Amino acid sequence: MPNRPEKHPGMIFRSEQPLNAEPPMELLRQSFTTPAELFFVRNHGSIPEIDADRYRLSIGGMVQRELRLSLDEIREQFPRSTVTATLQCAGNRRQDLMEVAPIPGEVAWSAGAIGTAEWRGTPLREVLQAAGVEPGALHAAFTGLDEVEMENQAFGFGGSIPIEKAMSPEVVLAYEMNGEPLTPEHGAPLRVVAPGYIGARSVKWLANIVLQAEPSSNYYQTHAYKIFPPQVDEETADWEKGLMLGELSVNAVICRPTYEEAVSAGPVPVQGYAITGGERSVERVDVSTDGGETWTTADLQEGNDPWAWRLWETLVDLSPGRYEIVARAWDSAANTQPELAEQVWNFKGYMDNSWHRIEVSCTG
Amino acid sequence: MPNRPEKHPGMIFRSEQPLNAEPPMELLRQSFTTPAELFFVRNHGSIPEIDADRYRLSIGGMVQRELRLSLDEIREQFPRSTVTATLQCAGNRRQDLMEVAPIPGEVAWSAGAIGTAEWRGTPLREVLQAAGVEPGALHAAFTGLDEVEMENQAFGFGGSIPIEKAMSPEVVLAYEMNGEPLTPEHGAPLRVVAPGYIGARSVKWLANIVLQAEPSSNYYQTHAYKIFPPQVDEETADWEKGLMLGELSVNAVICRPTYEEAVSAGPVPVQGYAITGGERSVERVDVSTDGGETWTTADLQEGNDPWAWRLWETLVDLSPGRYEIVARAWDSAANTQPELAEQVWNFKGYMDNSWHRIEVSCTG
Repeated sequence: MPNRPEKHPGMIFRSEQPLNAEPPMELLRQSFTTPAELFFVRNHGSIPEIDADRYRLSIGGMVQRELRLSLDEIREQFPRSTVTATLQCAGNRRQDLMEVAPIPGEVAWSAGAIGTAEWRGTPLREVLQAAGVEPGALHAAFTGLDEVEMENQAFGFGGSIPIEKAMSPEVVLAYEMNGEPLTPEHGAPLRVVAPGYIGARSVKWLANIVLQAEPSSNYYQTHAYKIFPPQVDEETADWEKGLMLGELSVNAVICRPTYEEAVSAGPVPVQGYAITGGERSVERVDVSTDGGETWTTADLQEGNDPWAWRLWETLVDLSPGRYEIVARAWDSAANTQPELAEQVWNFKGYMDNSWHRIEVSCTG
Repeated sequence: MPNRPEKHPGMIFRSEQPLNAEPPMELLRQSFTTPAELFFVRNHGSIPEIDADRYRLSIGGMVQRELRLSLDEIREQFPRSTVTATLQCAGNRRQDLMEVAPIPGEVAWSAGAIGTAEWRGTPLREVLQAAGVEPGALHAAFTGLDEVEMENQAFGFGGSIPIEKAMSPEVVLAYEMNGEPLTPEHGAPLRVVAPGYIGARSVKWLANIVLQAEPSSNYYQTHAYKIFPPQVDEETADWEKGLMLGELSVNAVICRPTYEEAVSAGPVPVQGYAITGGERSVERVDVSTDGGETWTTADLQEGNDPWAWRLWETLVDLSPGRYEIVARAWDSAANTQPELAEQVWNFKGYMDNSWHRIEVSCTG
């Protein structure tokens, strides 16, 4: 297994071990569906080598019968479905938070820790129904076959989703991405895809599913991926508290122009993506070139994929000079974004959904 | 029927015809469940006089069999349930938006157009299942027996919710409020209670339910209760566009101290409510006395009512002087509130969830 999987040469590698990489904005925005070679990679441990023939998925916990399924059994004995879904890392846009105050030990993501793919597999609920969900099961906990090393211990990355979400048809155990078998860095041979939730819940290299009364006890559910108030830091954090992340918040990002790009005076195309969480939909994107005094409503790309991002674009009229272009989205629950990164800063650097800002120089 | 139902003498009447009234903050915050006499009243038309014995609810549209049910039939032939739910008018806090720019023709609500009650009735889905939901039914449309007059026409107030919401167990056809029969101004003898949605969808004096492929064609679904971008006004609005309101956004309000209250130096109690929409929960409330430079995390009142507001309180240490106290909430989807009312201003004045602000004088 090469340390660096075959990714697009333009990919930005944020760390090599574990492997973390994101595409630059102009490549990310080229297509509605993100090619695998441009799809962000977010790992906490190794990329395991898994022999697909010997692979088995275990389903246990509060079920009527434990299951142990081969990949062929999952493919052949259960219905198949395809969902076009966007996955976004909870740490996407962390760089903007790092400019407010340091966030040591976390990946310095720009706004590319997001991607959209056609995920083909088996609806999770089909497998859970085959196992028989016990009444007390309130969460589906997933653990991966990767190895995260922490304090001289090695364990698989894990996380959970509420049982109602696990039983929703859009949550799949995916073995294909964009019509091709999953590649190792994206979770081959089988991964969870939990649309509308932070990417961390879409556990890769899925080893087992455990139905239980409580959320996962994995480090990445009980410690990481929690939001704390701004006055709390690593030393003062009470991990029992903190906002346990689940559904994504509303967010819009400008992909073009890129940061510090030189543009020509006149109508300048501004393009980006927008996303929200749960079953909500992006309803509007606003763009401003005067710091939010006045706004232009962007055109949302047509589409009928409720679990995917909405691409958007508009034209802004610029005269020669320096500009900050900002964008914000609104979702179907009338939530919108806070203005400033300091208003959402938290010491782990999650869920920056402050207005996205791009500085450009406009020449005559 | 008296024009003015028996409400608490402290109620603030915003208009007499139609009747619109809200409680002052200090009375609203006295209890988790809002007494009927303090519960806000939001009407667009008359308060109809309905003979409960002759009352019939019609269920039609995309159903297998049309139903026409008396109140006794609804009470006796269907399961009963009670939901503790908060209703909030989409125009709550409009006063703050009106300070940004005029919003003519709309009710000048302070932050009291919200209340929490125990609603007892029949789950809507039980009635819909009895009628048999046709596959193409995507929305449940409700119309009331009140009379709204507009352009020389009279019609009942109406609105709709998506069928998935209509089939969720928390949506009830309520005939009791806080253990008493519904009073006329709150929708007697039967009303919808759709928790997590703007109050307008909880149609009072329910005349009929129609299952259909599209949202309600009632004025209050197609025109009112839509959010437009800040640059759009009554004359430029394209009513086909606009964000059709449904789930509530995240919001926190300071109830005590009240506006311009004199407080004594030292630890000053700050109390309020917070709410969010859909199936999300309020996870945190922050309070600041320095304009958002530093924040105190409030204590959330314990409780296990997923469809109700969260009451909160904290202490802030004040020295003599003038202060602006601000509050903001975070919900389980990591959404929080924008800082300024101008950032959410819209010409109909809906869904102000900017940071709530109270000015106080602190004496030594």
